[in-house]
Amino acid sequence: MAELQHKILLDESQLPTQWYNVVPDLPSPPPPPLHPGTLQPVGPDDLAPLFPMDLIAQEVTTERFVDIPGEVLDVYKLWRPSPLYRAHRLEKALGTPARIYYKYEGVSPAGSHKPNTAVPQAYYNAKAGVRKLTTETGAGQWGTALAFASALFGLECEIWMVGASYDQKPYRRTMMEVFGATVHRSPSDLTEAGRAIRAGNPEHTGSLGIAISEAVEVAAGDPEIRYALGSVLNHVLLHQTIIGEEALLQLASVGEAPDVIVGCTGGGSNFGGLTFPFLREKLAGRMSPTIRAVEPASCPSLTRGVYAYDFGDTAGMTPLMKMHTLGHGFIPDPIHAGGLRYHGMSPLLSHIYELGLIEALALPQTECFGAAIQFARTEGIVPAPEPTHAIAACIREAQACTESGEEKVILTALCGHGHLDLAAYDAYLAGRMVDEDVTDERFAAGLADLPRVPAGA
Amino acid sequence: MAELQHKILLDESQLPTQWYNVVPDLPSPPPPPLHPGTLQPVGPDDLAPLFPMDLIAQEVTTERFVDIPGEVLDVYKLWRPSPLYRAHRLEKALGTPARIYYKYEGVSPAGSHKPNTAVPQAYYNAKAGVRKLTTETGAGQWGTALAFASALFGLECEIWMVGASYDQKPYRRTMMEVFGATVHRSPSDLTEAGRAIRAGNPEHTGSLGIAISEAVEVAAGDPEIRYALGSVLNHVLLHQTIIGEEALLQLASVGEAPDVIVGCTGGGSNFGGLTFPFLREKLAGRMSPTIRAVEPASCPSLTRGVYAYDFGDTAGMTPLMKMHTLGHGFIPDPIHAGGLRYHGMSPLLSHIYELGLIEALALPQTECFGAAIQFARTEGIVPAPEPTHAIAACIREAQACTESGEEKVILTALCGHGHLDLAAYDAYLAGRMVDEDVTDERFAAGLADLPRVPAGA
Repeated sequence: MAELQHKILLDESQLPTQWYNVVPDLPSPPPPPLHPGTLQPVGPDDLAPLFPMDLIAQEVTTERFVDIPGEVLDVYKLWRPSPLYRAHRLEKALGTPARIYYKYEGVSPAGSHKPNTAVPQAYYNAKAGVRKLTTETGAGQWGTALAFASALFGLECEIWMVGASYDQKPYRRTMMEVFGATVHRSPSDLTEAGRAIRAGNPEHTGSLGIAISEAVEVAAGDPEIRYALGSVLNHVLLHQTIIGEEALLQLASVGEAPDVIVGCTGGGSNFGGLTFPFLREKLAGRMSPTIRAVEPASCPSLTRGVYAYDFGDTAGMTPLMKMHTLGHGFIPDPIHAGGLRYHGMSPLLSHIYELGLIEALALPQTECFGAAIQFARTEGIVPAPEPTHAIAACIREAQACTESGEEKVILTALCGHGHLDLAAYDAYLAGRMVDEDVTDERFAAGLADLPRVPAGA
Repeated sequence: MAELQHKILLDESQLPTQWYNVVPDLPSPPPPPLHPGTLQPVGPDDLAPLFPMDLIAQEVTTERFVDIPGEVLDVYKLWRPSPLYRAHRLEKALGTPARIYYKYEGVSPAGSHKPNTAVPQAYYNAKAGVRKLTTETGAGQWGTALAFASALFGLECEIWMVGASYDQKPYRRTMMEVFGATVHRSPSDLTEAGRAIRAGNPEHTGSLGIAISEAVEVAAGDPEIRYALGSVLNHVLLHQTIIGEEALLQLASVGEAPDVIVGCTGGGSNFGGLTFPFLREKLAGRMSPTIRAVEPASCPSLTRGVYAYDFGDTAGMTPLMKMHTLGHGFIPDPIHAGGLRYHGMSPLLSHIYELGLIEALALPQTECFGAAIQFARTEGIVPAPEPTHAIAACIREAQACTESGEEKVILTALCGHGHLDLAAYDAYLAGRMVDEDVTDERFAAGLADLPRVPAGA
């Protein structure tokens, strides 16, 4: 048989040493975050209770490239550069003339792309003398990543885990504890935000927005504690561009350029990390991929939300961010892809979507899990629920090529493994999984209480 | 900071293309398996109801090297060559002058070293026209590997899972089902062996030996069905030598040779696979590592068993094999390292131990999990319960170097990740894990009913 190359590897000496900031390459900058009281753009001092100055500087930088500190590169090398795979066996099963490549981030200690930003966030906080980091976690991927990164830099780590996940995924909690973190069920009695919600409903199963409120409240009240966010913000997407920079090198090493890039979007960090370096090449006229975001039909902030200023959390403690949002009071159904259950979308990615530089698509979860089963039985890797959306969209594109005969190059990101999400597969295989059915009324209710921001603010 | 290399990678073109058979390099051959009725050495025809001829030929081959088929190499390349890591961060935490290297097999689709033999076993069975494979699984690693391999070669796969694991690890079952396998709780009502045991105790939690009896019974009764074993046999250890062959190349590429090799042993395949290529180099006088097997204190076949002919299963359906055994009726305590709960030990490895070519050590599980926590918080990977034994022994050796000042090179195999074994970590962190305490009486009882084989048979 002919010898096929499955993995395109880089060695540690080829690890990119800079993150890429897409902002200066855009035709216009994204609207600034606003202080919810004054409606004026927030300055570094407004963010200082939450983040160390190095990260605030990265949040607003206009430099195109940011050097990755040596201490961060040293940790990245525990798993990076991550492999790029050519999906020969999936292609064969689909009978497609397309060439499918997937960048696999499940090789990280936490099993997802999240450590790409958890590690620099822990590093900059430790450098600033911070003692403890607080954060929220939904599906548990981000909490695991920050627990891991905190262990390496000697920081305490306290995590508010969305109640529904805390109850359903005890082993996710255990994994965070293995890395030394303390994990609370959210809403908790430890914060005002949590107590207020529990007063109305002691059994409340929580949401990412609520858990963010709790973690932010604790960090804001103590100068030795800072908060870390796993997606949405500019500096998080900046850190994740290591994914796309590696993929560019890897595809170039086999003489390929993508015709289509598809990635899943929750808060947007995996998608931005994969696609921004390719968007740079596209804006410079060096390649011309179609770039497509895939979101769950139950939480479709790009395809069903509005582009408006809204809070990042449920209690309204964060700055106002202009983004695609379903409303900060929208509580998504408890679908299995917990990492995609966020009412908003990265403001930077929302701006890029408004500029018409990317497309978006919402998919129902049974199609996604069906695609994931086919993927596992051909490529061997069991995807996390979030990237099942990317896999499903990738298979749609490859099947279109089967019909059209086009030999497109499709790139996607398999942003994590599903080893801790097998209950979702069990539901799918047993026929218990149903597709999302969110009524127009619920979407309308979520959008009804957006904060009022005068046009031009 | 100085740049450290963490991963020593090979690319796919450097993947070894032959397995290594240690038998012809030994000063004497291992004793043959015997037919339990005639007490004569079993021939190929005796094994034909269970295994295809290609595997029987590998079981008894005297060739030093066996070519790996192209179809198998093509699947290996989904994850192989696997990385060899230098444990810089663990070394620093231990303050040791030792240099620690670990070969990581958790990158495979099944998350362990088991696919190294599952893939060729599925390939040779498919080539022989077999329709279905049966097997047993304890902790679930082997069943997952065979389910994965069967999916790739279009075979049905039916798995008897030890009842205790089936009840405690529902997600292991789900992962096998994701790959398309059918999983039964053992003892089951589907076999005579299972029904006989359930008649005495309907709630019996099973053992590897019982599950083997069930899978063997089903395979032996149907010419379209064959049986696959995940450890113990010569051809299994042969396939696993891909681990050690790669590690040899990887260490050589950084100019190192091991002073000590430690690996965990259940049936012996991970240990044999890692160490046999190094044993070849040692026997040829090209290096001189100490080679040490580490087993759980609850199931210490090398350090507390006898070297005698015994059955490989509980019901006494297999040929008699001369091996270190605790007696085929010995039911180990339900410790967390389910993959090490086997009453016997690979006959080939047992013979090598008798020849004095390797050492053995039994460790209690709390020391192993303590070591694993330290490993996770420095190196980032959460080990499966089985290799926690290797990690603990590795740390013992490194700590001895801290005291002596010796700059030993220590090599070990991290043969799988613990993503599906977090309940054991939860028990450890919550203080609920206790060390094994097997009485002398229980060991004596296990050894009391060994089959009688005349000396010189």
